[in-house]
Amino acid sequence: MLAPLAISMGDPAGIGPEIIAKAWAQRVAEGLPPFFTTGDARAIAAVWDGPVEPISHPEDTNRVFETALPVLTVEDGGEIMPGVPDVEGARCALRALELAAGLVRSGAARALVTGPVSKAQLYKIGFNHPGQTEFVAERCGIAGENAVMMLAGPDLRVVPITTHVPLAAVSGLLSIDLLVSKARATARGLMRNFGILKPRIAFAGFNPHAGESGAIGREEIDLIAPAIEILQSEGIDATGPFAADTMFHARARATYDAAMCCYHDQALIPIKTLYFDSGVNITLGLPIVRTSPDHGTAFNIAGQNIAEPGATIAAIRLAGEAADRRAAADA
Amino acid sequence: MLAPLAISMGDPAGIGPEIIAKAWAQRVAEGLPPFFTTGDARAIAAVWDGPVEPISHPEDTNRVFETALPVLTVEDGGEIMPGVPDVEGARCALRALELAAGLVRSGAARALVTGPVSKAQLYKIGFNHPGQTEFVAERCGIAGENAVMMLAGPDLRVVPITTHVPLAAVSGLLSIDLLVSKARATARGLMRNFGILKPRIAFAGFNPHAGESGAIGREEIDLIAPAIEILQSEGIDATGPFAADTMFHARARATYDAAMCCYHDQALIPIKTLYFDSGVNITLGLPIVRTSPDHGTAFNIAGQNIAEPGATIAAIRLAGEAADRRAAADA
Repeated sequence: MLAPLAISMGDPAGIGPEIIAKAWAQRVAEGLPPFFTTGDARAIAAVWDGPVEPISHPEDTNRVFETALPVLTVEDGGEIMPGVPDVEGARCALRALELAAGLVRSGAARALVTGPVSKAQLYKIGFNHPGQTEFVAERCGIAGENAVMMLAGPDLRVVPITTHVPLAAVSGLLSIDLLVSKARATARGLMRNFGILKPRIAFAGFNPHAGESGAIGREEIDLIAPAIEILQSEGIDATGPFAADTMFHARARATYDAAMCCYHDQALIPIKTLYFDSGVNITLGLPIVRTSPDHGTAFNIAGQNIAEPGATIAAIRLAGEAADRRAAADA
Repeated sequence: MLAPLAISMGDPAGIGPEIIAKAWAQRVAEGLPPFFTTGDARAIAAVWDGPVEPISHPEDTNRVFETALPVLTVEDGGEIMPGVPDVEGARCALRALELAAGLVRSGAARALVTGPVSKAQLYKIGFNHPGQTEFVAERCGIAGENAVMMLAGPDLRVVPITTHVPLAAVSGLLSIDLLVSKARATARGLMRNFGILKPRIAFAGFNPHAGESGAIGREEIDLIAPAIEILQSEGIDATGPFAADTMFHARARATYDAAMCCYHDQALIPIKTLYFDSGVNITLGLPIVRTSPDHGTAFNIAGQNIAEPGATIAAIRLAGEAADRRAAADA
């Protein structure tokens, strides 16, 4: 029997509990693999009137999953008010994440999906990682900077090479080494998690029109082109730099497997413009599979039964597929 | 009888002649208003076997338009080889632009649509404007920096506040004055050309997540928020700054009439991702209506009968509608 997937519930006052419950409700129609969620079962009951069953071990999931949402409970999250986050909820979210990640690392669960947390609340309780990605990476013994964030939609995958830094600082942060190491990890991740034998990696230019041969900036000539040359010499199918504005329409998207983007919005604008309700965040470079829906806690709509589970369903499906591919490759 | 639209043919070796001819061929199905094109009629004959009729004055258009594409010829463009640009072609393109712009300024034509030109070729013959927009602005007696480039698709309009400059230089180029003057011109342009009585102007942030209250950059706090305050005090419905990555999905697009974007790719990535074959460039702030298809000469596919006329058709339609609205407002 395959191990189930582990889904951390995220902040109990956010939309995590609702979208996980809705994903379970659609498990048959969507063909989702068995999963359990870690967190406070009361957070689910507060926003959903479907069947919930507490379990004491991941292996109970397969028995329960057909008839109820299996919840591996953690110490409770205080008083739960959907839409009103507090530090008790943050503690609960962190325990849920720690437990889910630990069970996947141990092999009791075969892939990790993380629900949305509030970084602002987590920082109040001493959480000192930039985000869940770096926390999970550390627990896996991987330096945060070696974990690569990829956002994936039905026909587009993007990797932001830099993330939450001021845009004016990005040029100074880019280096040939950084571009090469992120692209290497991306190529490996595409092979391992997506089953792509010879990944096609396309680099976006940094400047308008990819710098027009140096007329509008030199990052393409000084950094991106040399990085592509190194990658090509290693046998990686890397191309570019391409004008970023013409890389993301349907015909262009079909020409590569992942777009390497220089900064946060260069990657996030196209994926969220196209797939706002279904984008998945997958972390490459880890020994485990980890995905998450590409959205936040959405406290403003929590508890109103209007949250869309599409991205969570996509994150669960991709986590299951990636775990299957890794298992097949390692067999 | 309404005056016709004037369409400059663009570079005779580019896809301009083909897409203008194809737009004429679809004039009935698309409900396009009468137009003529300025340029070398032989460039059309080289790539299209439909009916072409030379005219000697714009007013001949209404007589001819039903049965043939009216061409107001300029001095010829040398030997025409689709896909192979030369300086003779650039001279022809510039004469065609000069003539079409002049006829619109004089009132003999009621709106200008410009076909794609090669800046590289134009620079060889002494053209010294950044692009056609600034050339047309100058001919209208407007300083280039007061002409505002807007890209428009079916449900998205974006204005890049800065354009063809290195991305690392953008932060230094942004100022409260620049943001305010571009937004004012945008609001006026939306009223005048699009008939929007109370335009909603949404500003994109410069940094990831719009700077997260200063944690990831200060351009939002120091520049964009103060500009919005000034605009609001003038009665303009300006909002933001918003996280750029979540501004362009379908539900978000419905909340504003134009997005003010800090840099080229922030504006161009979403519009070209969504509307690569149908985006229209419209210049606001001019005394005349000027639109163009939002793509280049595409020399690599010229003469192969595969160029898509969608953006040209959209540019002609928008030019006609904008001219109608201006005439109605001025009546």
